[in-house]
Amino acid sequence: MAPSLEDNINNKSNSIAAAVAGGGIIGDEMTTRVTVVGSGNWGSVAAKLIASNTLKLNSFHDEVIMWVFEEILPTGEKLSQVINRTNENVKYLPGIKLGKNVVANPDLESAVKDANLLVFVTPHQFMEGICKRLVGKIRADAEAISLIKGMEVKREGPCMISSLISEQLGINCCVLMGANIANEIAVEKFSEATVGYRKNKEIADKWVQLFNTSYFAVTAVQDVEGVELCGTLKNVVALAAGFVDGLEMGNNTKAAIMRVGLREMKAFSKLLFPSVKDSTFFESCGIADVITTCLGGRNRKCAEAFARNGGKRSFDELEAEMLQGQKLQGVSTAKEVYEVLRHRGWLELFPLFSTVHEICISRLPPTAIVEYSEHTPKYSLVGGPAQFF
Amino acid sequence: MAPSLEDNINNKSNSIAAAVAGGGIIGDEMTTRVTVVGSGNWGSVAAKLIASNTLKLNSFHDEVIMWVFEEILPTGEKLSQVINRTNENVKYLPGIKLGKNVVANPDLESAVKDANLLVFVTPHQFMEGICKRLVGKIRADAEAISLIKGMEVKREGPCMISSLISEQLGINCCVLMGANIANEIAVEKFSEATVGYRKNKEIADKWVQLFNTSYFAVTAVQDVEGVELCGTLKNVVALAAGFVDGLEMGNNTKAAIMRVGLREMKAFSKLLFPSVKDSTFFESCGIADVITTCLGGRNRKCAEAFARNGGKRSFDELEAEMLQGQKLQGVSTAKEVYEVLRHRGWLELFPLFSTVHEICISRLPPTAIVEYSEHTPKYSLVGGPAQFF
Repeated sequence: MAPSLEDNINNKSNSIAAAVAGGGIIGDEMTTRVTVVGSGNWGSVAAKLIASNTLKLNSFHDEVIMWVFEEILPTGEKLSQVINRTNENVKYLPGIKLGKNVVANPDLESAVKDANLLVFVTPHQFMEGICKRLVGKIRADAEAISLIKGMEVKREGPCMISSLISEQLGINCCVLMGANIANEIAVEKFSEATVGYRKNKEIADKWVQLFNTSYFAVTAVQDVEGVELCGTLKNVVALAAGFVDGLEMGNNTKAAIMRVGLREMKAFSKLLFPSVKDSTFFESCGIADVITTCLGGRNRKCAEAFARNGGKRSFDELEAEMLQGQKLQGVSTAKEVYEVLRHRGWLELFPLFSTVHEICISRLPPTAIVEYSEHTPKYSLVGGPAQFF
Repeated sequence: MAPSLEDNINNKSNSIAAAVAGGGIIGDEMTTRVTVVGSGNWGSVAAKLIASNTLKLNSFHDEVIMWVFEEILPTGEKLSQVINRTNENVKYLPGIKLGKNVVANPDLESAVKDANLLVFVTPHQFMEGICKRLVGKIRADAEAISLIKGMEVKREGPCMISSLISEQLGINCCVLMGANIANEIAVEKFSEATVGYRKNKEIADKWVQLFNTSYFAVTAVQDVEGVELCGTLKNVVALAAGFVDGLEMGNNTKAAIMRVGLREMKAFSKLLFPSVKDSTFFESCGIADVITTCLGGRNRKCAEAFARNGGKRSFDELEAEMLQGQKLQGVSTAKEVYEVLRHRGWLELFPLFSTVHEICISRLPPTAIVEYSEHTPKYSLVGGPAQFF
């Protein structure tokens, strides 16, 4: 059983008392302040995780500020006010108490100005705008972490969100990825996550401290790019797994396709960033997130429907029907990855990635996902520079 | 589409004609003869795969001998005779044509005496007896491969089937493992497998040639122990995954448990055999077989039932009810692995393996599978000599 909020508060009070008795100084100036930028489903869960830890750990200021993109609820109330009154994000994470020390703030600049640690968790397409607004408005010594999955992959390579944050704001940025279905973590089901860091192991440990709980096991690896790319590329693998489901090929085939997908994720990441480590793909951000995404998830679901219809109904149509306005990230990522592969002459090295895109645009039938015959070397599983696979 | 048997025969006839015309000699003495020792579900599928390739490849003798443990069918006929008349293993793989060049032979000694390649695919408990019977009865230059999953793990370490064969018969022995549900491969659904070899890459390539088809993609890795241990240890992970299913913890938790399981498989194998490679666990025998076994499979299924009953009905009872006489390999492997861990003082390094056994014997409740709390360092995910994990 996870300790209750009351237990946490009592533990911390006791520790503070002990520290003071022992001559330690716990001043407001010396504690680390955390702001979560974003308050959707995953952002709210992140705030809950963090808030349970800031209460327990002396080195952190109890209060966690959560920037809320203000909305007016059907009741006429403001979302931020309801969150602060009820301690619940009634719109994006109803039924879950965030912790009384989570404070919603709809003013971005005021939310971030005192933060030592900035946690970014917004839809990826908003980050460019948010970064622009934050230039010069944050502490120069702030540290950032991105929980944002799904970057844009441009022809010259992936546009990493962590790099965007670092470059625009002039601060260091880690990432946190993994098999993280927000609603399951919200109800404290056991899960894991991976922090990717660049150089500073102490900062990585601080992030681990801030996120780790008895039901959320966090590990740090020195590989920002590897961890971050996993969060995007897995959606392409999920489409492949969905096709296999739609074709009713069975668990054997699905397992094989997931394995080949993970292998191509690894090779693609290593070809683009030679610093990427093989071991990263054994972490939660790698294999575990591939498994979760290929078992559940909307990319898999729509791809299954696509294959069941023999590719005769487009992804746009299925998306509109099945996802209530949400967009499928996998389809656009597959297209972007395909462009990179074509641009660099690597198409034949990545039979799964390239086939997924060609199925999405109806150039190939869904059955092509398992046609790795020796007669079509284009889809050969054994081609390519061995060191990357 | 896979080429038909007729196509294969025609192709090979043409190639032989071409070779003869070009001055090549294709003599019966020079071709490699294959015998499959075993004719159960997986053995029959292996014979089918091999027989489709020996027809196509000039270096192999067309005929594949399959040793059949003779049984009298309800009709009064002998199983071997029915296989040879109908070209089907009516008892263990009904409805699937094995290829006309598969010849069932109930006499073990006569089945193996001329074989250059011996494929062992029997239940593992029969191998000791079979090896004893084969001493001095096989060609001295024969090469062997074991498709047998599930070895016994004795206190002093695993009793590898490949070592048993090598030591008893004085011949080299490779292994073939992977995400291989026999009935799915029998109907030619896409799948993969991994050959583990010790030193001789040429022999490994020969095995790949013999097994690889358009729907069965085989890769060779120089790591017999790693590949072989995967085939046994995955059953312990499948029990853990089944507990999670029975507790209805969701995909996130299941993915995390599968990942931790794969990680312990890797660490356990490397601690016992320092030559074991990390990369082996990215192959079909590793991650893909873990996925297949944790999605389907009888270990997962019985463990789910065990957890649903809160551990109140024993595995013996569930086995008897659910498996029609088959035994659960995972439960005994978990016990054997636990003994090794206890004997070597490694229990705390393997929280998942040790917890699975303690749940099986009702020392812990099924919910313990996800209790990796910081308050119980025994189950800490981050302990242990880092280089092995």
